[in-house]
Amino acid sequence: MNTFGKIFRLTSFGESHGRGIGGIIDGCPAGLQLDIDLIQKDLSRRRPGQSKITTQRKEPDQVEFLSGVFEGKTQGTPIAFAIWNKDQHSNDYNELKDVFRPSHADYTYMQKYGTRDHRGGGRSSARETIARVVAGAIAKQMLVKAGVSIQAFVSRVGEVELNKPYTELDLSRTEDNMVRCPDAETAEKMIARIEAASKDRDTVGGVITCVAKGVPAGWGEPVFNKLHADLGFAMLGINAVKGFEYGSGFEGTKLSGSQHNDVFINTDKGIRTKTNNSGGIQGGISNGEDIYFKVAFKPIATLLKEQHTVDKNSNEITITPKGRHDPCVLPRAVPIVEAMAALVFADHFLLSKLNSI
Amino acid sequence: MNTFGKIFRLTSFGESHGRGIGGIIDGCPAGLQLDIDLIQKDLSRRRPGQSKITTQRKEPDQVEFLSGVFEGKTQGTPIAFAIWNKDQHSNDYNELKDVFRPSHADYTYMQKYGTRDHRGGGRSSARETIARVVAGAIAKQMLVKAGVSIQAFVSRVGEVELNKPYTELDLSRTEDNMVRCPDAETAEKMIARIEAASKDRDTVGGVITCVAKGVPAGWGEPVFNKLHADLGFAMLGINAVKGFEYGSGFEGTKLSGSQHNDVFINTDKGIRTKTNNSGGIQGGISNGEDIYFKVAFKPIATLLKEQHTVDKNSNEITITPKGRHDPCVLPRAVPIVEAMAALVFADHFLLSKLNSI
Amino acid sequence: MNTFGKIFRLTSFGESHGRGIGGIIDGCPAGLQLDIDLIQKDLSRRRPGQSKITTQRKEPDQVEFLSGVFEGKTQGTPIAFAIWNKDQHSNDYNELKDVFRPSHADYTYMQKYGTRDHRGGGRSSARETIARVVAGAIAKQMLVKAGVSIQAFVSRVGEVELNKPYTELDLSRTEDNMVRCPDAETAEKMIARIEAASKDRDTVGGVITCVAKGVPAGWGEPVFNKLHADLGFAMLGINAVKGFEYGSGFEGTKLSGSQHNDVFINTDKGIRTKTNNSGGIQGGISNGEDIYFKVAFKPIATLLKEQHTVDKNSNEITITPKGRHDPCVLPRAVPIVEAMAALVFADHFLLSKLNSI
Amino acid sequence: MNTFGKIFRLTSFGESHGRGIGGIIDGCPAGLQLDIDLIQKDLSRRRPGQSKITTQRKEPDQVEFLSGVFEGKTQGTPIAFAIWNKDQHSNDYNELKDVFRPSHADYTYMQKYGTRDHRGGGRSSARETIARVVAGAIAKQMLVKAGVSIQAFVSRVGEVELNKPYTELDLSRTEDNMVRCPDAETAEKMIARIEAASKDRDTVGGVITCVAKGVPAGWGEPVFNKLHADLGFAMLGINAVKGFEYGSGFEGTKLSGSQHNDVFINTDKGIRTKTNNSGGIQGGISNGEDIYFKVAFKPIATLLKEQHTVDKNSNEITITPKGRHDPCVLPRAVPIVEAMAALVFADHFLLSKLNSI
Repeated sequence: MNTFGKIFRLTSFGESHGRGIGGIIDGCPAGLQLDIDLIQKDLSRRRPGQSKITTQRKEPDQVEFLSGVFEGKTQGTPIAFAIWNKDQHSNDYNELKDVFRPSHADYTYMQKYGTRDHRGGGRSSARETIARVVAGAIAKQMLVKAGVSIQAFVSRVGEVELNKPYTELDLSRTEDNMVRCPDAETAEKMIARIEAASKDRDTVGGVITCVAKGVPAGWGEPVFNKLHADLGFAMLGINAVKGFEYGSGFEGTKLSGSQHNDVFINTDKGIRTKTNNSGGIQGGISNGEDIYFKVAFKPIATLLKEQHTVDKNSNEITITPKGRHDPCVLPRAVPIVEAMAALVFADHFLLSKLNSI
Repeated sequence: MNTFGKIFRLTSFGESHGRGIGGIIDGCPAGLQLDIDLIQKDLSRRRPGQSKITTQRKEPDQVEFLSGVFEGKTQGTPIAFAIWNKDQHSNDYNELKDVFRPSHADYTYMQKYGTRDHRGGGRSSARETIARVVAGAIAKQMLVKAGVSIQAFVSRVGEVELNKPYTELDLSRTEDNMVRCPDAETAEKMIARIEAASKDRDTVGGVITCVAKGVPAGWGEPVFNKLHADLGFAMLGINAVKGFEYGSGFEGTKLSGSQHNDVFINTDKGIRTKTNNSGGIQGGISNGEDIYFKVAFKPIATLLKEQHTVDKNSNEITITPKGRHDPCVLPRAVPIVEAMAALVFADHFLLSKLNSI
Repeated sequence: MNTFGKIFRLTSFGESHGRGIGGIIDGCPAGLQLDIDLIQKDLSRRRPGQSKITTQRKEPDQVEFLSGVFEGKTQGTPIAFAIWNKDQHSNDYNELKDVFRPSHADYTYMQKYGTRDHRGGGRSSARETIARVVAGAIAKQMLVKAGVSIQAFVSRVGEVELNKPYTELDLSRTEDNMVRCPDAETAEKMIARIEAASKDRDTVGGVITCVAKGVPAGWGEPVFNKLHADLGFAMLGINAVKGFEYGSGFEGTKLSGSQHNDVFINTDKGIRTKTNNSGGIQGGISNGEDIYFKVAFKPIATLLKEQHTVDKNSNEITITPKGRHDPCVLPRAVPIVEAMAALVFADHFLLSKLNSI
Repeated sequence: MNTFGKIFRLTSFGESHGRGIGGIIDGCPAGLQLDIDLIQKDLSRRRPGQSKITTQRKEPDQVEFLSGVFEGKTQGTPIAFAIWNKDQHSNDYNELKDVFRPSHADYTYMQKYGTRDHRGGGRSSARETIARVVAGAIAKQMLVKAGVSIQAFVSRVGEVELNKPYTELDLSRTEDNMVRCPDAETAEKMIARIEAASKDRDTVGGVITCVAKGVPAGWGEPVFNKLHADLGFAMLGINAVKGFEYGSGFEGTKLSGSQHNDVFINTDKGIRTKTNNSGGIQGGISNGEDIYFKVAFKPIATLLKEQHTVDKNSNEITITPKGRHDPCVLPRAVPIVEAMAALVFADHFLLSKLNSI
C-alpha cells in the first residue's frame, strides 16, 4: 500500500520525527547515469525555509543513497535512499499528544490503527513527500532520454489567479520568483496574498498547473490505467490535494461536443490536433500533444489561530498551536507535482516497450 | 492493466463488437447471497435506449454468471460473468475503418498497438463499463452488510446546474426522472438541454455528484492509496471523465485555513465534525462523515455533425457519422459512478480487516 | 489470487461442473498472429479420454475466444476465452455432497470458505488447468519468436524410471506413445504399470521432466523472482505436484562444490559452460544453456477402492467411489507442465525488455 | 521484483559491499509489540563467524529500525530497517573484476544488466538474506499470536543423512550443536563432513527440513497460490537452493494412491488425518496437520581451489580465490528457511481474514 507504480515502483517509508524519510525504487533500468545535483536541486525546491513565504523550519534534506547505484550508474537493482531527520523538536508535540487537531489525520489514524506516532503528524506529515521528490527526480532523468520534460507552476493562490493559458507563458521563468508563478506581475500579488495569510497566522490554498512536453503518442492504458487516471491518482495522493482536472477540465463540460472535439490535421510534423481540449490524452492514451492538468490544494490545516476541537477522551477543548507554520504550501508543492507526474510517465514509458511484438 | 482493485479485484474483458463484455471478480469473500435482480437493475440503469434522452440503440444487457456462484451464493472463487453482444451492426463501421475520428481513441490506439478493432470503438467503447456495473453491483451488496450506501446523481448538464448542496436534496427522488437529478425542476431544464443537443445532432457534458453514507472511520491508506485518491483514480478511468474533486474541491481552495478546517465536536453519536469541507476524508482516511465528490464528464465525441479530420494515410477528410448517438451520457453514467465507488469502498472495507493485530 | 504472472498474466475462472472453465490473458502484446490449431492441439493432449490409459470421460474441450483477438491477431487488449462444460453428470456427486474424500480438497475448502461446490471437486478440480493450457499455448507462440522451445515428457511412473539424461534422448519421439515418454522401451513398461493400477482401481504417480531450449542469457530476476523460483512456483501450483528440482537437483547436493561448479569455456558460439549442473540458471538468471527441471506428481487421490473417511458431521464412514477414474495423470499433465513453463518464460521474456536503458 | 508477499510484503535492498542491506515491510498490522532481541537472535543464527564450521568473516549484523515502530510497537506504517555493512574489504575483489567465476551470477548479471557491482557478488550475494531474516523474525512474532511455530533443521550434509522422520526427533535440540541437526550423533558426522570440505578448500551441500506446527485448517489459495506453491517459491528464492518437496515429496510418487491417501478420522481434537503424506496441505490449503517440507542446497560455488573459467573478454583463465570461504551454508541457512516460511504463513494468515463475509 506504500508502493506507487507498476514497473518503475517507489515504496516509501518514514515519519516526520523518526529516524528519517526514504524509499526503495524498484524497476529502474540499469545503466542510467545519475546526476545527484539535479536530485538535490529538486529537494531544495521542496525544502522548508527556502524563502520568506514558506515555513521557517530549517531542514537540510540531503539525500543519501544506500544501494542500487555503483560508480554513479543505476544497476537495475533496488535503489534505496534516505533523508535523515535532524533537529526534530519532537517535544514540541507533547501537548498535542492526545488532541485531534481539526482537519488533520490525528483522529482518522487513531481510528484506523488504534495507535499513532503523534510527533509532527508521524506518517501523515507532508515530509513524507521527500521520498517522492527523490524518486521523481530520477524518473525525470530517465524521461529526458525519451524527450519528455515536465514543468509545474503555481496558477492560483486563494483568489489570485494567473488568467492566461499556459501556452502564452514563458515557463522557464517559473523559478524566477519565490512563489513559482511564471508571470512576474501575478507572482507579486500571490506573494502579497501569502504574506497576508502568514501575518494572520492563517493559511491559503490554490492551484498548481503542470505541463508535460514531448510525450509521444501511445502511452497509457485503455481501461483503468488511463494516463490521466494514473496522473489523477498520483496528484490526489499528495497531501492537501482536493481536486484534479486535465485538458478542458470542469469548464470544458459546459461546451458542446462540436466545440470540444479536437480536429485532427496533417502537418509537416505528422498528425496533430488543431485544438487541445483533450489535454494530450484521448481514450486514456497520449496523442503526442502537450499534456496539461490542474491540481487543487486546500489551505493546509496547520495554523496558529485558536481553534476548538476534542481530545481522545472526547473532551471539547481549545488549542492555539505555537511555533512555525507554512502559510501556503503551493510553492513547495511544485516539485512534488512534477515528481509524481514523472513517476507516472516513467511507468508508462517502460510499459510502452511491451505494447506490441 | 485491465484489473481494478487490490483485494476485491475486477479484471474486465471485451470489445463493443466482439463476442461480449465481461469480467472476473477475484477476492469476493465466500458466503455472500447475491440478489441477481439488483445487479440487473443497475445494468438497466446503464442500458442504452432506456429513455428518449439516451441513445436509441437497443441492448438487452442480460448478465450471465459463468463461475464462482453456487446456489446463489459466492464461493470465494473467481466470479466470471459475461454480457453477450447482440445485434451489433458491425458493418456500419466499415467506412470509418481507416478514419481517425476527432477526440476518439482511434488514433491513439493505432499509435499504441499498431492495430485496432475499429468496430464501434473496440475496447475503447463505453460499452466496456458494463463489466464495472456488474462488479460494482456485487460490491454494493457486500457493502450493505457494512452499512454503506452509495448514491450518485446528475448535478449539472451543460450550464444547467443544480445549485443546492446535496444535504438539502432528497436523494431518493433521483430515479424519479430520466435524467437522474433529484430536483424535479432542475431535471426538467436538464432534459430540455439534452433534447436541444440531440436535435442539434450534438452532445452536451456535465457533472455527476456522488454521496456515500455509512462509511465508518478508518478506511483508506495513509500515503498513495488515500481513499480519495482511489476514488479519483476510479472515476478518471470512466470514459469521458475530465475531472474529479471531493469535499470542498476546487472552490474550497479559495478559503483560508481557519474557514476550511472542520472543527471536531463531541456528540451523542461520538466524535463528529461540525462542517464537512473534508468530504468525509482526512489524511486519506474516512472520518465517519458523509463522503461526497464530483465527477466532470466532457460532451462525448460521437456526434452526427460534419467534422474535419484525417485518415490513417494522413489525408484530410470530412466525415458526417450516421446512425444513433447519445446526446448526453450523464444519466447512464450515474450507475457507473456508483459502481466504481462501490469497488473502491469494497476494497477498503476488506483492507480495513488487516489494520491491526 | 487467481492470477498468474507479472506482465503476461492469466486470471483463470471456473469449476468442473459450472458453466465452463476459462480465463483472461492480460499483457499479451499486440500483433501476434495466433494459430488456433496449435492451441487446440495442446488441449487435446490434456483432454480426458485420449487413450486407454487415461480417464474415459469424454470432453471435447473446444476453446472459444471471447475478446482480444481480431482477424486472428492479438490486439493488446485482454484475451478472454472459455471452454464450456458439457455432459457433466453432476448428480453423480450427490452422494459425496457431505463427504470429505481422503486427500482431496473437500475438507480444506469447507474449512476455508464455509461453503463449497461439491460437484466434481468444484474449483479444486484439475479441469481448471484447461485455462492454463490455453494461455500457455499462446505464450509458446510468442516464445517461438524469441527462439524458445519447451518440451516435457514423462520420466518416471511409479518405480519405472527412464534412466537416461535428457541429452541422450530424442525428445521429438515424446508424442509417439500414449504415455509421452521419448524412450519406446521404457514407455512400454510405464503403460503396463498404469494398466496394472487401472485394473486395481488404484492410481500411480511419477515424475515429469521438462527442457527449455533457446532461452537467451539474462532472463530472471536476482532475488525473489529467480527464474527457477518462478518455475517452481508454477509447477507446484499444478494439481497433485509434490516436488520440484532443477539442474542437478536433490542429487546434486551430494557433490562437492568443485565437482558441481560448471566451468565457463569460450566457444565459437560464445561463452558456454562445460557441464550444466546449474540447469541453465545461475544466480536466478538464465545463462544461455538448456534449462531443465523435474516435477513430482503424487498418485492422485481419486480411486475406486473402498476407503474410510468422515463426513461433514464427523461421522466415520466408508466410501467406494463409482464411475471412471484416471489411473495416472502424468501423460495428460505433460502439456500442463509445458504451459506453465511457457507462462513463466513469457513473463521473463517481456520483463527482459526493461532491464536496461 | 524485489518484493515478496501479497499482504505482508518485504521489499529488500542492498549489495554486499554497498552502504548496507535492508528492506521495507509493508502490510504488517499495527499494534504488534516487537521483541527486538528475538530478531537479533535470528540474525546471529545467520551471522558469519558464529562457529568453526562457517566462514570466519566477522559481521556484527546489528539491525537498525528506521520507521514504522514507535515505542516498540508496529504502527501499521512501513517498517524500514537496515543492517549497515562494515569492514567490507572491497579491494579484495579487484582482481575478480573482469572474471566470470564458475557457477556464480557474475556472467548472468552482466548479460542481464550490461553492468554489475563486482564487489563481493553485489546484489547476488547471500548477504541479502539478512533482510529476509529480519522480516521473517517479525512475521514469526505475529504468527505466535495465531499459534504457529516454525522450526527448521539440517537433515543432510553431503551423504550424511539424518534417517529419522521429524516426528521421532526432539526439535528443541536443534540449536544444541553448531550444525543445527537435532540428532547429536548425526550432528557429529555432519560437522566432520564439513570440516573435511573446509580442509579441502571445497564446499558441501545438503538438505534442510522445516516443520510448521499450529497452522489451522483453511490457509492457502486454491489455484496458483497454493500454500505449498508459495512455500516452494519462497525456498527456491534462497541462494543455492536447487529443489523443494513437501509431505511425501519425490519418494511418495512411488506409492499407489491407496497407500498415499491420508484417511480422515474423527478425534477428540476434531477431524484429523491418520497419516500425513499430504504434509498438512490438501488442494493447496492447510488441513490442520503439521506442515513439513525439504529444501535442497547445492554446494556453494565459492571455493578456494584452482578453477578454470573465462573473463569478460572471453579469455580462458585460471583462478584460485583467496581469503575465507564458507564450506557449508546449511547451518546458517536454517534461520533463512524459517524466515521465508514465516513470511509465507504471515501472508496467508492475513489473507485468511478475507475468506468469507
